[in-house]
Amino acid sequence: MGLADLYTSRTPLYFGGVEAEPDRADMLVVGVPYDATSSYRPGSRFAPRAIREAAANIELYSLRAGIDLEDYRIADLGDIALPVNPQEVVKRIETVVAELLENNPGKLLALLGGEHSITLGAYRALARHDTNPCILVADAHFDLRSEYMEEKYSHASVMRRITEVYGGERIFYIGVRAFAKEELEYARSKQIEYITSHTARLLGVREIVNRASRWMKKAGCQSLYVSIDMDAYDPAYAPGVANPEPEGLEPWMLLDTVFRIVAESSVSLRVVDVVEVSPPYDCSGVTSVLAAKTLLEVFAAYLIQRAKGAR
Amino acid sequence: MGLADLYTSRTPLYFGGVEAEPDRADMLVVGVPYDATSSYRPGSRFAPRAIREAAANIELYSLRAGIDLEDYRIADLGDIALPVNPQEVVKRIETVVAELLENNPGKLLALLGGEHSITLGAYRALARHDTNPCILVADAHFDLRSEYMEEKYSHASVMRRITEVYGGERIFYIGVRAFAKEELEYARSKQIEYITSHTARLLGVREIVNRASRWMKKAGCQSLYVSIDMDAYDPAYAPGVANPEPEGLEPWMLLDTVFRIVAESSVSLRVVDVVEVSPPYDCSGVTSVLAAKTLLEVFAAYLIQRAKGAR
Amino acid sequence: MGLADLYTSRTPLYFGGVEAEPDRADMLVVGVPYDATSSYRPGSRFAPRAIREAAANIELYSLRAGIDLEDYRIADLGDIALPVNPQEVVKRIETVVAELLENNPGKLLALLGGEHSITLGAYRALARHDTNPCILVADAHFDLRSEYMEEKYSHASVMRRITEVYGGERIFYIGVRAFAKEELEYARSKQIEYITSHTARLLGVREIVNRASRWMKKAGCQSLYVSIDMDAYDPAYAPGVANPEPEGLEPWMLLDTVFRIVAESSVSLRVVDVVEVSPPYDCSGVTSVLAAKTLLEVFAAYLIQRAKGAR
Amino acid sequence: MGLADLYTSRTPLYFGGVEAEPDRADMLVVGVPYDATSSYRPGSRFAPRAIREAAANIELYSLRAGIDLEDYRIADLGDIALPVNPQEVVKRIETVVAELLENNPGKLLALLGGEHSITLGAYRALARHDTNPCILVADAHFDLRSEYMEEKYSHASVMRRITEVYGGERIFYIGVRAFAKEELEYARSKQIEYITSHTARLLGVREIVNRASRWMKKAGCQSLYVSIDMDAYDPAYAPGVANPEPEGLEPWMLLDTVFRIVAESSVSLRVVDVVEVSPPYDCSGVTSVLAAKTLLEVFAAYLIQRAKGAR
Amino acid sequence: MGLADLYTSRTPLYFGGVEAEPDRADMLVVGVPYDATSSYRPGSRFAPRAIREAAANIELYSLRAGIDLEDYRIADLGDIALPVNPQEVVKRIETVVAELLENNPGKLLALLGGEHSITLGAYRALARHDTNPCILVADAHFDLRSEYMEEKYSHASVMRRITEVYGGERIFYIGVRAFAKEELEYARSKQIEYITSHTARLLGVREIVNRASRWMKKAGCQSLYVSIDMDAYDPAYAPGVANPEPEGLEPWMLLDTVFRIVAESSVSLRVVDVVEVSPPYDCSGVTSVLAAKTLLEVFAAYLIQRAKGAR
Amino acid sequence: MGLADLYTSRTPLYFGGVEAEPDRADMLVVGVPYDATSSYRPGSRFAPRAIREAAANIELYSLRAGIDLEDYRIADLGDIALPVNPQEVVKRIETVVAELLENNPGKLLALLGGEHSITLGAYRALARHDTNPCILVADAHFDLRSEYMEEKYSHASVMRRITEVYGGERIFYIGVRAFAKEELEYARSKQIEYITSHTARLLGVREIVNRASRWMKKAGCQSLYVSIDMDAYDPAYAPGVANPEPEGLEPWMLLDTVFRIVAESSVSLRVVDVVEVSPPYDCSGVTSVLAAKTLLEVFAAYLIQRAKGAR
Repeated sequence: MGLADLYTSRTPLYFGGVEAEPDRADMLVVGVPYDATSSYRPGSRFAPRAIREAAANIELYSLRAGIDLEDYRIADLGDIALPVNPQEVVKRIETVVAELLENNPGKLLALLGGEHSITLGAYRALARHDTNPCILVADAHFDLRSEYMEEKYSHASVMRRITEVYGGERIFYIGVRAFAKEELEYARSKQIEYITSHTARLLGVREIVNRASRWMKKAGCQSLYVSIDMDAYDPAYAPGVANPEPEGLEPWMLLDTVFRIVAESSVSLRVVDVVEVSPPYDCSGVTSVLAAKTLLEVFAAYLIQRAKGAR
Repeated sequence: MGLADLYTSRTPLYFGGVEAEPDRADMLVVGVPYDATSSYRPGSRFAPRAIREAAANIELYSLRAGIDLEDYRIADLGDIALPVNPQEVVKRIETVVAELLENNPGKLLALLGGEHSITLGAYRALARHDTNPCILVADAHFDLRSEYMEEKYSHASVMRRITEVYGGERIFYIGVRAFAKEELEYARSKQIEYITSHTARLLGVREIVNRASRWMKKAGCQSLYVSIDMDAYDPAYAPGVANPEPEGLEPWMLLDTVFRIVAESSVSLRVVDVVEVSPPYDCSGVTSVLAAKTLLEVFAAYLIQRAKGAR
Repeated sequence: MGLADLYTSRTPLYFGGVEAEPDRADMLVVGVPYDATSSYRPGSRFAPRAIREAAANIELYSLRAGIDLEDYRIADLGDIALPVNPQEVVKRIETVVAELLENNPGKLLALLGGEHSITLGAYRALARHDTNPCILVADAHFDLRSEYMEEKYSHASVMRRITEVYGGERIFYIGVRAFAKEELEYARSKQIEYITSHTARLLGVREIVNRASRWMKKAGCQSLYVSIDMDAYDPAYAPGVANPEPEGLEPWMLLDTVFRIVAESSVSLRVVDVVEVSPPYDCSGVTSVLAAKTLLEVFAAYLIQRAKGAR
Repeated sequence: MGLADLYTSRTPLYFGGVEAEPDRADMLVVGVPYDATSSYRPGSRFAPRAIREAAANIELYSLRAGIDLEDYRIADLGDIALPVNPQEVVKRIETVVAELLENNPGKLLALLGGEHSITLGAYRALARHDTNPCILVADAHFDLRSEYMEEKYSHASVMRRITEVYGGERIFYIGVRAFAKEELEYARSKQIEYITSHTARLLGVREIVNRASRWMKKAGCQSLYVSIDMDAYDPAYAPGVANPEPEGLEPWMLLDTVFRIVAESSVSLRVVDVVEVSPPYDCSGVTSVLAAKTLLEVFAAYLIQRAKGAR
Repeated sequence: MGLADLYTSRTPLYFGGVEAEPDRADMLVVGVPYDATSSYRPGSRFAPRAIREAAANIELYSLRAGIDLEDYRIADLGDIALPVNPQEVVKRIETVVAELLENNPGKLLALLGGEHSITLGAYRALARHDTNPCILVADAHFDLRSEYMEEKYSHASVMRRITEVYGGERIFYIGVRAFAKEELEYARSKQIEYITSHTARLLGVREIVNRASRWMKKAGCQSLYVSIDMDAYDPAYAPGVANPEPEGLEPWMLLDTVFRIVAESSVSLRVVDVVEVSPPYDCSGVTSVLAAKTLLEVFAAYLIQRAKGAR
Repeated sequence: MGLADLYTSRTPLYFGGVEAEPDRADMLVVGVPYDATSSYRPGSRFAPRAIREAAANIELYSLRAGIDLEDYRIADLGDIALPVNPQEVVKRIETVVAELLENNPGKLLALLGGEHSITLGAYRALARHDTNPCILVADAHFDLRSEYMEEKYSHASVMRRITEVYGGERIFYIGVRAFAKEELEYARSKQIEYITSHTARLLGVREIVNRASRWMKKAGCQSLYVSIDMDAYDPAYAPGVANPEPEGLEPWMLLDTVFRIVAESSVSLRVVDVVEVSPPYDCSGVTSVLAAKTLLEVFAAYLIQRAKGAR
């Protein structure tokens, strides 16, 4: 190896900084740069790259876990190539995620959205694979519209599609606060559990974790999907999202909550996604940084869960 | 009606999304695009349009009230045409607001500022109409200077002008924290009530609401004007304001407080304004979104108050 | 009418500032806020509003025509509501535009894009109506790909779709300079005429106008569609576009050219569109201003053509 | 002097970088941070500071003059404190400028605007001092409205006020291209000379300079005021202005023209202003840089004129 | 003095607004515009100017202290001229600060950074002057790397350099939360005290102040240096920093804590710095405003300490 | 290969889009992300990534050459890791470039700056390799200061360092227009050839190419280095540079000129760099796009030169 090789880092932008081979990795990362159904502020197509860049500029040590993620291997598989048609996109994601889950048993798969509609394909893939996967959703919105702007596969309908096929008992929302009355009534009618951001403030982290724990038991969850819509956070902390909604959660609270739910649970975390970051509206870049941090804390929780031998 | 009519929405930018006739409306909205006395960062002239656009992209359901504002009618009357001269502006606003109050008894009038100086004209109009109107002001500043930059009708003097004519007992501040010593002394000498953002944190929502309730009784308020200077919020939540001041209120706290003061009171809310949003400095647009949300929560509180039969 | 009515302008954001009824108008304007197939920088969905605002802040007098457009009537019909699916969008636009052409004979219809894919629906509508419509396209790109990102109705394929059905002889490009070799070969094989921005600099306005004139005769054009992709201009003048490409045209040259082609021709101008402005990337707002100006100059050319009695 | 003094530059932001005493200076600079009548995009109040910062970061050597401005002394007097009321502002500027002209005979006075309305006060002051001052105006607009937004002292009326008192023969416009028909007719009726940006392109620099020379003779100009509204330039070169208008002049052409008119003339240049830069809209800062450069080239032309012994 | 002098404020941009002579001042301010070792987002070189401008637009009354800083004198000495080489920069700052401390006994010296590496030079200067100075650091990071990007004098190594020479017992961190495992282990091995932002939330202000008080006693501090890296705050409150890290402190908490530590202590505060503001990334300007406010509250605490006769 | 592999593009951000092995490539690209000596607006450290992203979104067909660069292989080697110290940086670049030139005979090496100081190391490396390399510099500035801000290896001194060692006869500037008088005198004294942007406008492309051709003969150039400082372009076309200077070149003119000089010459082009793009100031991203286009046109010219068998 010459000096040029020594001094030149052929730095593709990998999440976590160092390239790792998928089969030797602890966590897999894949980007899903899609935003065609965005109804207000598009741009989440650029989020995978922005989150990778942010991840390269923050520290990988988790104070919650006492774990240094530099000691583990993250394999960044790049981005999924996607068409425009929303239904085709869902199918494509389902196909790719299903194969990744198949080929990488026991590894956490992380998706960098993209808008929230991408969760449908990934959840379907997980449901193909596991008998009864549950989904924990941090979100300002229910995304339970029957369709939106004439589109059934919209980001605003993603959880409706999931509920219709897999049932509402498997769903648990944190931070929800903005919705049409119809969505609220639908959620109630389908036994979907939800904790608004107002309620979260009253309950505190411990009680929310307890409720989530009871929910997982009651629903008989066999594996877990965690979906973080960044608009669950208050716009002060995550201004660069597609649909900012006031009165969201503070990062310490959401991160404490999700970390404990995962780390304390024996239900195995299989997939996590972070969606709805819109870099063109993230003027100071702090939303991408928070998205990267969120993913890293979920990774740390996953490693703790795994160390304890979650099924 | 042809297909073109069916598919084309002649979408003028109305607050609340749907056009309603004033005489059949529950709430009236009018824009006041004026910022000529802005001493630091101008641009609040663009706020009426930005707040309307934000309102069109957030949900209209109020979790605090359990009310869906889509079930009510909001009439957006457009913007008041205004000259440059500050004194003329005050007169113009007084004239227009007085007529709107006269012609629309029992309806809430909402003003989309513009800078804070617009409150003087609107308050004068309300005082013409009601015997003893009180004013609740959320603001980082007292705006009690005798004049500012040689101008008596400046945004920085608006509450001084009101105090001089109508007395300080009618005024109640929340969130104040930035002022000259002279303003503080003037406020005290005029029996103006105020709760700084530091004090607010110590007292909590319940106690502030109680104090406001006692103030309304003591001052014998016959109607209520609520004026929200967006800089009452912390700049983290409302960065796009004319004069950002650190250590402001969090949205949940200010909204809880104002909502309860209005909803629990029998003193009829007649006018609300939201002022000092400066879109050119609102990079991620979250200040306009919060302004729209603030107005919607005040609307919901008003509807609850009205349903209880406030006088 | 009271003083409130006098002083309050219920200002919906109409192009041209003053509301006019369609049947009494000289020109019709309709917004087409669609950008789902944008392959690089989305945001042209916001262009109709941005162009209207820009039009409200520039003068309406045309130095080229010696015409004050304030003496004419522009009816702004608002925006077409659109789904996400690109093929459905094309159909919707075709339906709406066909009806507008049917119901408003002899009036110029102007479309505010949106991305370039909207031209397909509008051209189809015109072709339903007129026997042999020709299309003059100002663009940096050929948009002649057989499909793009797996999508046949992409902005990058719009002229391919038109060529396939209606033939290449009807198409004349100005300012083209960025394309794949395949597109160039396709253009040549289909007898499509084009003048690159480099060639345009060499030929000068007079010679380009002559060539366009000969093209219209040769192709037997019975009516004219003018489609202005704002990236035909150099990015210095139009930075806020979806796909900026260096070495574009200067505004005076493109405006002189289009103005003369229309004003000097007896082939009646029926539809004009201005597409691909992306406001989130138009930091100083100058692209929207130039788009508004471009439309106003085309309006002025149309009025001259009409005064001369073009068929 | 200690090391702290040696290494610490007490760098107030002076135009030209080095502090000079007014009575020993060749040129005086004063900021006029006023924008209250701005009808579209405010912010020119911040222009004096932005132009000073830009001037500190470009070179002071003039290629046109072969002069290094570092060999001359520029005294930056700071900013004029101004009220809000437009009429008062005009009076204040007139008072200050009159005294500066009185106390600094034979020195060029440069004003850093602020909006264009500031020219009225400064021109009045010059007219108090010299018998027959003429004014060369680079501008996209005529600014000849009888009033604007109910304001007679608006930026849009500034040249109307001057024409009314001092006559239209003294006025020569370069680059004008956007106006109401009434303004054009008024200009013609008052024998105001103007060269539109379209005409400028046809005539070329030499012919414009000749026309300006004939104008000065015919009008019997005894001194010269040069007023540069930055919107005379094309928005590509000056995007950060209050009212961008397409099809403006290129910097080389306007600078060549103004430089030669001044440098070749024996009519003494007394005042120059650069107005209408709006830093909040000058995203990349290039408008402030061009404003600084424009002033430096006018300074160089003045020094040449002075060296030749202009009266 | 003429009217021109009366109305013209020769406004250099002084911190605190009014020019005061150093020897009659209570506080000295000096800018240190250096950012060459910034590893992520440069631009803190522009912070001194931005913080001065912000300070000129907020109120100077401290609610915590009940003190109006307008009653005291702040001398702004301008900026230190600096080379590029990091080691030379440290030496230069040490030289200048040492002389300022020597010549201005009993006055608080405030440095406007610049990046955090500037603290090394200033601390060395203080250590030359006082026998046992301690340093209170608000920071998201430890800055304890042995070198960074091959540079020993990097912002990321500044506290390592200080620890190596002066020992870790003198250092107390607040808000730290992002670091490599090695830095944590180094901190522990050197008896450095630190309170993470997570711990701070649990302890509360009173307990942190008590711990700091005990630390100062234990370490035998004879004077105090307070270094505020603005990234100690949460990015919601301070988005415009070089290295934003989620889960930071809220302003009220950090300001309460630092204010009380200083105001309640008898260990004399000698130097304060505010570092790492990056104006190009501070889109809405709120980071500079918070930096100015932070400095003002430290000034107020200093004045209280001084009034009590701290040694 | 599974479907996941098929649909997932492990998209590192390579210039030219497709990964190619160095030894099979026609052109090599390496990033040099360094900006520590930037005296005004830093940020060119981010330019390599921004230019790569821009290159991925423009077409690779060169109209000037009639060549589709997609038919050739570009190997992007990633970025050189660099320290802070300017002198060390120069050495590092020299080492890496020398080895790359050694190992890749007959291939064009392209450097993505970074600031202009990087050219010194690369030129030194070329001079080690070839007997008499000449350098064609497009720049607004001479960069001939003996040192700048106490730094000999500053971007403002880079050509001075080259001149001192290798002589001024080897240097040819295009577009220079901003400098201190001393630099101009130094340039003349060293027989450096230069064409200002004003002169370029008068001469035209053909004559400039002729002069460059004569210069290469006279100087006995054995190989060629082309260095493009993006501020050679007018700020309208390249606003996002470290030091914008008005009155620059238009892209068509600079590209025509450089293209012809290279394509028509038999002196072999060995190294090209594109420097001084500052993405934080490139609001609409057009500067990065123009930088990418510039490089592509130089590649096309190189391929033509190579096809003709340049030595």
